Amino acid sequence: MGKILMGPKTLIYPMPVLLVGANVDDKPNFMAAAWCGIANSEPPMISVAIQPHRYTHRGIRENLTFSLNVPSVDLMRETDYCGIISGSKANKVEACQFSVFYGKLNNAPLIEQCPVNLECKVVHILDLGSHSLIIGRVEETHVSESCLTDGKPDVDKIKPLIYTTEPARQYHALGEVMGKAFSIGRELTARK
Amino acid sequence: MGKILMGPKTLIYPMPVLLVGANVDDKPNFMAAAWCGIANSEPPMISVAIQPHRYTHRGIRENLTFSLNVPSVDLMRETDYCGIISGSKANKVEACQFSVFYGKLNNAPLIEQCPVNLECKVVHILDLGSHSLIIGRVEETHVSESCLTDGKPDVDKIKPLIYTTEPARQYHALGEVMGKAFSIGRELTARK
Repeated sequence: MGKILMGPKTLIYPMPVLLVGANVDDKPNFMAAAWCGIANSEPPMISVAIQPHRYTHRGIRENLTFSLNVPSVDLMRETDYCGIISGSKANKVEACQFSVFYGKLNNAPLIEQCPVNLECKVVHILDLGSHSLIIGRVEETHVSESCLTDGKPDVDKIKPLIYTTEPARQYHALGEVMGKAFSIGRELTARK
Repeated sequence: MGKILMGPKTLIYPMPVLLVGANVDDKPNFMAAAWCGIANSEPPMISVAIQPHRYTHRGIRENLTFSLNVPSVDLMRETDYCGIISGSKANKVEACQFSVFYGKLNNAPLIEQCPVNLECKVVHILDLGSHSLIIGRVEETHVSESCLTDGKPDVDKIKPLIYTTEPARQYHALGEVMGKAFSIGRELTARK
């Protein structure tokens, strides 16, 4: 089994698809983002990498708040649109027919149609070169009632999107369950 | 459509599953991680959140290098095992029968069986509370020749794992392709 060197720019792994929200000049705007990751658990924090020239970036710097909204497969077109078009050129909320609401933070816009919405307060902004890595403390999570089963969020109802880049940039549905985490590996403990 | 408040600790979105590698006392060790995200494109950087008491964390601090390895679905048991057991208690390389190799950095161990391997140099370590957010510059990417199609990495051959937490912590396969990114959203531009 041979290995091929691909150079450092081949960042191949499955990524979540999210819509980052911020008020810009007091108006809600959203951009698509896949470069996100959980950064901390106590307190809960999340990171998102955004280019400084982006319209949404301006809103995040202005308010030091933002939101992360998890779109379902049904919102794939709207999500992709929010990744193509700049908020400086179009009213994306109108074009996507998003119903916007606000939660605890008052100025981090949330999308009603997205099954999961996180409200975040900026705690760090790291300028790393092409992107700012924005680290936000999660202040509240909203989940659509229709996506709960027995009171718990249910990924089969949330139907999130996954983004991959190779061999082409595309959106995937989440696939079948393969095994229980923190459990199926115990088979190896027995084997040892 | 109502929303339910879940509190800030409900970090619900699909996450990639990776194996983070580091040499600890000159011996290769790997831990499973899902709290990763791309942090920058020029130069390419990636972040991973790791608790400071973890054995792998010690190795990363010692060498200021680490690797990210993308396991395929076939390595689910081994991957989960690497998330359950500490390297201070077991030789995980042996238990998982990993073939370890080194690339450009000499001391960031890579797993032959994983279709994709990233070699990273630490550029920042942010202590955020429970976790350190480790930001690494990607120095090289290795891809298994068997996972290429026409010389390009092919996600259908890589078969990565996805991790979700709700309603239960579980591993998924990647699902079907739903649409082309930076393309399918143009339908809304036309609609406007």
